[in-house]
Amino acid sequence: MTQKRTAFFISDRTGITAEMLGRSLLTQFDQMEFEERTLPFVDSVDLAQRAAAQIEEAAKRDGARPLVFSTLVDSSLSSIITATSALYLDCFQFFIATMETELGVKSSQSVGKSHSAADVTQYYSRIDAVNFTLTHDDGSSTRELAGSDIILVGVSRCGKTPTSLYLAMQFGIRAANYPLIPEDFEARRLPAQLQSLKSKLFGLTIRADRLQRVRQERRPGSRYATLENCQHEIREAETMMRNEAIPYLDTTSRSIEEIATTILQQAKLQRHIY
Amino acid sequence: MTQKRTAFFISDRTGITAEMLGRSLLTQFDQMEFEERTLPFVDSVDLAQRAAAQIEEAAKRDGARPLVFSTLVDSSLSSIITATSALYLDCFQFFIATMETELGVKSSQSVGKSHSAADVTQYYSRIDAVNFTLTHDDGSSTRELAGSDIILVGVSRCGKTPTSLYLAMQFGIRAANYPLIPEDFEARRLPAQLQSLKSKLFGLTIRADRLQRVRQERRPGSRYATLENCQHEIREAETMMRNEAIPYLDTTSRSIEEIATTILQQAKLQRHIY
Repeated sequence: MTQKRTAFFISDRTGITAEMLGRSLLTQFDQMEFEERTLPFVDSVDLAQRAAAQIEEAAKRDGARPLVFSTLVDSSLSSIITATSALYLDCFQFFIATMETELGVKSSQSVGKSHSAADVTQYYSRIDAVNFTLTHDDGSSTRELAGSDIILVGVSRCGKTPTSLYLAMQFGIRAANYPLIPEDFEARRLPAQLQSLKSKLFGLTIRADRLQRVRQERRPGSRYATLENCQHEIREAETMMRNEAIPYLDTTSRSIEEIATTILQQAKLQRHIY
Repeated sequence: MTQKRTAFFISDRTGITAEMLGRSLLTQFDQMEFEERTLPFVDSVDLAQRAAAQIEEAAKRDGARPLVFSTLVDSSLSSIITATSALYLDCFQFFIATMETELGVKSSQSVGKSHSAADVTQYYSRIDAVNFTLTHDDGSSTRELAGSDIILVGVSRCGKTPTSLYLAMQFGIRAANYPLIPEDFEARRLPAQLQSLKSKLFGLTIRADRLQRVRQERRPGSRYATLENCQHEIREAETMMRNEAIPYLDTTSRSIEEIATTILQQAKLQRHIY
């Protein structure tokens, strides 16, 4: 019953915007099956013609016309794609016209300004944040911990490292992370290095069965990975975070994007890159 | 002459799609000045009303109506925002209608499927790739190097680490990276660990003045950071990559997104997450 369609994301630059908008739209049609193809850097007549050929091939193979999500700005290129049998969805055109009317100015019609390295300051902010985060991953360095924008805390394998890296990469946040370990639970207090930095702490927690699965992959059969131990550590960590009034978030059914965006909002962090 | 406007990105989930499309569109109006505000997780009437209040405040402050890029799906929420004085740009509506006609089915009108953790397999692919990349950063481990999807090579500080992490985080690519150092240039051959893995190698290079600036921040006043040394290392590394037929890319005026997308395409890598 459901017919397969091919969806193309076409851009003169990275294709990230076309892909993201297109994917969001495709998820609204979950009764259909889509095969997705990204064609980045389509910035010449030759490449546009090759893209057009791929589109026609897919049309023939599927027996149905493809959907094309495009951020091509140059009309000499987009016209090659619109001439195919595909449904051409221009990610910009509809909005640009409305915005021109509203703002009373013409758009620059320039190619791919988004995700380019135009802003060197932002480039350095990002590299700096990623380096900071790598240096301060898993409590590996407490030097300059006070220079962090945020310090994620939680039990081992609850998602601190990928979240820290995402915060650094996408938002330029200097995100350190520091593990809460059995010794801390026995002492019933925060690691000494963190005690003066309480305003920067943000906790992550996780459901015990999920933590068990992650730890089991890491160290199969270890006591560290047993459900009982996971339950114990999580209970202790959550008690500590509540007692110390550290805000915390359950990562279990959240994507890294969701976790990072929530932290950004709840901790009122100032992002350094856009 | 240029009047400032406030641009809001509003979503019932992370706001990442609204932000990305909105920002791409705003860059087309570079003669204007925009103040950008992201309002994620607007998923209740109360939060929609608070968002509406912020919009009206901005309208008053700017003396001009704000632009609102929205991915709100629930009409009981979006109607609260459309009732404000802002120009409301629905990132989905226009496309959804066209797609429903084309596909002959109704959209699910469901909230925020994009960037959610719905797909556990993709979640684990991502965590696995990030862990692999961290373990194989800067040649730190040669164990299981053969299990990598790609190995980035280049002189110290040419952009290998952030590019590897971006490939892992965004595409689920197991991206190792390995430095080319003066000893390799003297020996005039690839590090021994890489010789059997030549098909996985991809080179990064950089302009000497940019490398000097990056190294200077890292180790001010060192020989390592002199322009002469940077020029020498880059020349040697490029010669080696050409002799060994390793494809390479200049990172100097490219963003991490552009570098990663280009590598994905040129090395024909299979992405594991979308």
